[in-house]
Amino acid sequence: MTIRLGLVGLGKIARDQHLPAIAATNGIELAAIASRNAGLPDLPHFHDIDALLASGTAIDAVSLCTPPQGRFEQARAALLAGKHLMLEKPPGMSVAEVEALGRLAEDRGLTIFTTWHSRAAAGVEPARALLSGKTIRSVRIEWKEDVRHWHPGQQWIWEPGGLGVFDPGINALSIVTRILPEAMHLTGATLEFPENRAAPIAAELAFSTDSGIPVAASFDFRQTGPQTWDIVVVTDEGTLKLSLGGSRLSVDGVERMAEEDREYRTLYGHFVSLVANGRSDFDLAPLVHVADAFLLGRRKVTDAFHD
Amino acid sequence: MTIRLGLVGLGKIARDQHLPAIAATNGIELAAIASRNAGLPDLPHFHDIDALLASGTAIDAVSLCTPPQGRFEQARAALLAGKHLMLEKPPGMSVAEVEALGRLAEDRGLTIFTTWHSRAAAGVEPARALLSGKTIRSVRIEWKEDVRHWHPGQQWIWEPGGLGVFDPGINALSIVTRILPEAMHLTGATLEFPENRAAPIAAELAFSTDSGIPVAASFDFRQTGPQTWDIVVVTDEGTLKLSLGGSRLSVDGVERMAEEDREYRTLYGHFVSLVANGRSDFDLAPLVHVADAFLLGRRKVTDAFHD
Repeated sequence: MTIRLGLVGLGKIARDQHLPAIAATNGIELAAIASRNAGLPDLPHFHDIDALLASGTAIDAVSLCTPPQGRFEQARAALLAGKHLMLEKPPGMSVAEVEALGRLAEDRGLTIFTTWHSRAAAGVEPARALLSGKTIRSVRIEWKEDVRHWHPGQQWIWEPGGLGVFDPGINALSIVTRILPEAMHLTGATLEFPENRAAPIAAELAFSTDSGIPVAASFDFRQTGPQTWDIVVVTDEGTLKLSLGGSRLSVDGVERMAEEDREYRTLYGHFVSLVANGRSDFDLAPLVHVADAFLLGRRKVTDAFHD
Repeated sequence: MTIRLGLVGLGKIARDQHLPAIAATNGIELAAIASRNAGLPDLPHFHDIDALLASGTAIDAVSLCTPPQGRFEQARAALLAGKHLMLEKPPGMSVAEVEALGRLAEDRGLTIFTTWHSRAAAGVEPARALLSGKTIRSVRIEWKEDVRHWHPGQQWIWEPGGLGVFDPGINALSIVTRILPEAMHLTGATLEFPENRAAPIAAELAFSTDSGIPVAASFDFRQTGPQTWDIVVVTDEGTLKLSLGGSRLSVDGVERMAEEDREYRTLYGHFVSLVANGRSDFDLAPLVHVADAFLLGRRKVTDAFHD
């Protein structure tokens, strides 16, 4: 049975990633669009999810690609209408609201998938396998990109709930929480807020794993020139490096893996499998770490940011 | 069997509440103190928990009354030494670190009790019973106190992890999350930070329960004169009011309950029962709501605060 999907939100991430991934994935097909601004040729189009659900258009599942602010009500409406649910990252604008969605999906026997697309990067599962059983000494994350290039005109990212530099940074946290053999918790943080913005533009974070391994992270939204999305794990048996957001993997400088990006195709394939098996994939750990960073982080005000 | 307790941290809350409550509770007795600054007559005294644990002094459990910053390492040391654990509120300075303690206690078969003393206020369980099955229309929390009176010279409260006005405010959240028949999540918040402090002095919060009931909260640390710790729940069958931090309960203005404070005796009695039955009481919901408020809250800078 092919899953008939309603896609909600037709912005940059939907066009760049979701549409081609859905088209390339067996077992799922695009059946309707809900977007305030745009539709697609030959597809039913609605102003918002409520209109889509009220229309009687036959869909089995909803994929939400809207900004995190306001996504809760859309997600709740989808679940209450009996639709399986796939959430872009971050899965919501607060920990408690996503927990509420998890309870609702479970109560209704529906699939909920809190996607973390970077976990589907080619190097991540091989890195996880390589680190299993190793003695890890330290972890260093550097996640620095140019917000003007990657988030042109996306004002929501600077609003409360938009996460600022944690919008990319949470991708790094989603990888690290997947590849390390134990959980971690924040021990200290500094967040830099532009004087005219409600979300941070840079952050320095220090974590410790359950057994005390230090994990340091630097996030920055002001990186021009070459972009940096690196995670370096020092072990007793060599240094593992994930670069380009997890798509490249090397050990002691020798490349082990460099594949083309298939992240979103992997996500949709996984979603098809989850629905077929009546299961969910629900993990809030990256969002909990971000909430902890806001909770525990020392705030510094820095220069105004203008798009 | 009487639990031999090591008390760690001998500050204001320990002296005001923990010592008399322990003395008044059957099944538990104070066996040692760990405190940088002070001891008690006729009791073994150590500089810190590591010295206490290394001393071989016979204790079965540890109660942590230190500030939340730094409590994780103390808690972890207690659990690794095989001691049951009771944590003052908030149970830690981040969500993830307390989750780590929960996992460790479970792995070791030890009791962990994340106390929320306001939940033990006399009116709370009667309020919970009264609200069960009622149609609730709205909830209003007002939690306003004079920080200079209640937290004299406690600089930790203004540091990252000290929570500022959420240190009392989390008490209100611990009550509301206990008395309401369903969970809630934050929908918006404003936090006021004094220009010279790292923690908020006031906050306005808006929550929604799973079914959409609005819950509003005002926290303020600048209240002189009469102090306010009120929760008002409007239902179809009357208005319930918890006041004085949960110790008084009235319905439509008629007093139902006004008992002397027994909060900490209730906590220690519960801890004795948990240990005897090999169980834990582990709930992070109030801390998750505070983390969400820092994550989602719009920050405003306000006048400097001086003790």
